[in-house]
Amino acid sequence: MVFVTRKERFNAAHRLFRKEWTDEKNLEVFGKCSNPNWHGHNYELYVTVKGNADPETGFVMDLKVLSTIIRTKVTDKLDHRNINLDVDFMAGKIPSTEVLAIAIWDQIADEVKASGCEVHCVKLFETENNFVEYYGNLK
Amino acid sequence: MVFVTRKERFNAAHRLFRKEWTDEKNLEVFGKCSNPNWHGHNYELYVTVKGNADPETGFVMDLKVLSTIIRTKVTDKLDHRNINLDVDFMAGKIPSTEVLAIAIWDQIADEVKASGCEVHCVKLFETENNFVEYYGNLK
Amino acid sequence: MVFVTRKERFNAAHRLFRKEWTDEKNLEVFGKCSNPNWHGHNYELYVTVKGNADPETGFVMDLKVLSTIIRTKVTDKLDHRNINLDVDFMAGKIPSTEVLAIAIWDQIADEVKASGCEVHCVKLFETENNFVEYYGNLK
Amino acid sequence: MVFVTRKERFNAAHRLFRKEWTDEKNLEVFGKCSNPNWHGHNYELYVTVKGNADPETGFVMDLKVLSTIIRTKVTDKLDHRNINLDVDFMAGKIPSTEVLAIAIWDQIADEVKASGCEVHCVKLFETENNFVEYYGNLK
Amino acid sequence: MVFVTRKERFNAAHRLFRKEWTDEKNLEVFGKCSNPNWHGHNYELYVTVKGNADPETGFVMDLKVLSTIIRTKVTDKLDHRNINLDVDFMAGKIPSTEVLAIAIWDQIADEVKASGCEVHCVKLFETENNFVEYYGNLK
Amino acid sequence: MVFVTRKERFNAAHRLFRKEWTDEKNLEVFGKCSNPNWHGHNYELYVTVKGNADPETGFVMDLKVLSTIIRTKVTDKLDHRNINLDVDFMAGKIPSTEVLAIAIWDQIADEVKASGCEVHCVKLFETENNFVEYYGNLK
Repeated sequence: MVFVTRKERFNAAHRLFRKEWTDEKNLEVFGKCSNPNWHGHNYELYVTVKGNADPETGFVMDLKVLSTIIRTKVTDKLDHRNINLDVDFMAGKIPSTEVLAIAIWDQIADEVKASGCEVHCVKLFETENNFVEYYGNLK
Repeated sequence: MVFVTRKERFNAAHRLFRKEWTDEKNLEVFGKCSNPNWHGHNYELYVTVKGNADPETGFVMDLKVLSTIIRTKVTDKLDHRNINLDVDFMAGKIPSTEVLAIAIWDQIADEVKASGCEVHCVKLFETENNFVEYYGNLK
Repeated sequence: MVFVTRKERFNAAHRLFRKEWTDEKNLEVFGKCSNPNWHGHNYELYVTVKGNADPETGFVMDLKVLSTIIRTKVTDKLDHRNINLDVDFMAGKIPSTEVLAIAIWDQIADEVKASGCEVHCVKLFETENNFVEYYGNLK
Repeated sequence: MVFVTRKERFNAAHRLFRKEWTDEKNLEVFGKCSNPNWHGHNYELYVTVKGNADPETGFVMDLKVLSTIIRTKVTDKLDHRNINLDVDFMAGKIPSTEVLAIAIWDQIADEVKASGCEVHCVKLFETENNFVEYYGNLK
Repeated sequence: MVFVTRKERFNAAHRLFRKEWTDEKNLEVFGKCSNPNWHGHNYELYVTVKGNADPETGFVMDLKVLSTIIRTKVTDKLDHRNINLDVDFMAGKIPSTEVLAIAIWDQIADEVKASGCEVHCVKLFETENNFVEYYGNLK
Repeated sequence: MVFVTRKERFNAAHRLFRKEWTDEKNLEVFGKCSNPNWHGHNYELYVTVKGNADPETGFVMDLKVLSTIIRTKVTDKLDHRNINLDVDFMAGKIPSTEVLAIAIWDQIADEVKASGCEVHCVKLFETENNFVEYYGNLK
């Protein structure tokens, strides 16, 4: 078993808030992240897959294939977008780094499996100081 | 003469567009940076000042003072904000990295001079791949 | 289950030595790290907590709360200090990166638990080339 | 149990190809990585060992010893070399990052064990966007 | 006047040697960089252009245009190649970082000028520890 | 003319204070940097030399020679030391980053000149947020 990771990037705007809450309550809970006119980040995304190295190619998974899955299903939909308003797979969800990482996992897990591999971890940096890791729905 | 640099950070949303242009023209000129619902970045700002090291303190400028100027005049106004909508010193300006770097210079130059030092360069990273340097209005 | 990490920094002096040993023995075991007049590092500290994302906020833990715990209990006590001489929770301990990481865990584990979350990992960089990870007292 | 990591570096040339395949097939499978005249990378290698901190020294393992093992057994053989042609422990193997990480593990595991410690992970970056982790032959 | 920089990357193999010298002399002068079977690097290239910000767009130069020039004229020719053998604009030249930086400048200067801007600096990292800057043929 | 830079590192302790001042005055001027029991940093040093690329070797200066000068004259004297107490060329000087950068220039300028090259800049990072550049005693 070997673990292989691909890094991709996207730049997006978002706002943390609940529309059923007042602006005051949103500010109290989410602080400056609830700024009504949005703010944004250069997100860094690491997707780790696991499997055995193919004896012929030496690859666990062709990273061009993995990169294409991530771009098609995730970063093309997020890059230079508003996560609250523009991204189908985030509709109705709070765009915290935690919730976004889980949603990214759900976007790619099946397609990676169809390629004969398995997603192990989605790691998402919002800033150099804050990041999240999700290893799937472990029971 | 010694040059001293302080790095600060801010996360902001913006959109590149001219309101007198159609969405099509904005898209043609600014590409995905003109997304109507905004996008955003983790900006990294380097302010370089120049002067002689004080023989008593060894400092060209007390970096706590420089940091306070940058925060008060620049990053507190930009951080977790929308550059097009929320920032007084960017009102009516295109928020390109070039224009933003010049505006940041104008925000801090006088106050740094009042502290007995001189701004040499404002360097602003929009992403790890794109950055701008401004050395003042050289004639 | 999601894992969330916060990075903090501190700059400190230390010396690796045992006072019951001669300078020669300390030099033999600890090399230049035993320099009697101290040396120092820009430490980088990553604290990872784990839990479920709150359905209302999308947060595993409010990172402002986590940051405050780390600053109050750890980095305010270490930053711009001598780890051997100035830090109550390191008194009588060898300030190796390993021992320091374990002590940092012990400083924050209860308070993070009181916030309804759980420390998963303390990762501490002494230099870009050397770092330590501690996952608690696993039996 | 504490985990300690040492980072080392090497710069090497390689080519991904199978000599029993035509150039066309190699190009189809390995893309530009199969360029007949080679290409190269600045590899970054992280070796993590695990153990208990010695009560006298505070060390899981003396990092000078770990560094010497890595240099002698791994990086001295790879640095400024051609991985396909010049490296005894890669002879006859495809120099993918996966296969190279496994081979590096095999080069150092016994000697680290002889030092009273245990290799936990070999993490190898080929570029900033692609890296591999190997935790040994888990059954 | 504002300075704008675009970063691009390429991974390549090379060898420092003069064919009219013996292997011994090459080894003496170039050390391990003269390894007959090549070695390689992840090069990082920063191209800085200078000009005035266009009042309509806020741009000194459209970075998509600059990026396309760099890719077409430079990195597409170097990436996953052997600098000594595969790169037309390096034919017959020693592939030191200095000579390569000058050659990159010569590849792009005219096309940047045709876009109404001017190359100010080519900065090329061979490793994190070694880099070169070229500001053109200053007389 | 080409500019070539070599990066080196050292880890050191220091304290900013004037012994003729009271502890209160030192604290007022230097803040936590005046902690009587020292603190420390992982310093990063970039030395830039300038010259023409030798037509035979392609080098402005052999970086092994430059590295040896820096290590012998600078980093061997600073690494794992106390800058106030242990470093001959800093005796009697305030160890601010500014003063240290100037002193490093003075340590290496003659020897680099004797090698047929010229120091252009000494750039010294105390932390990722604070650094200094010195270009010599420009009149």
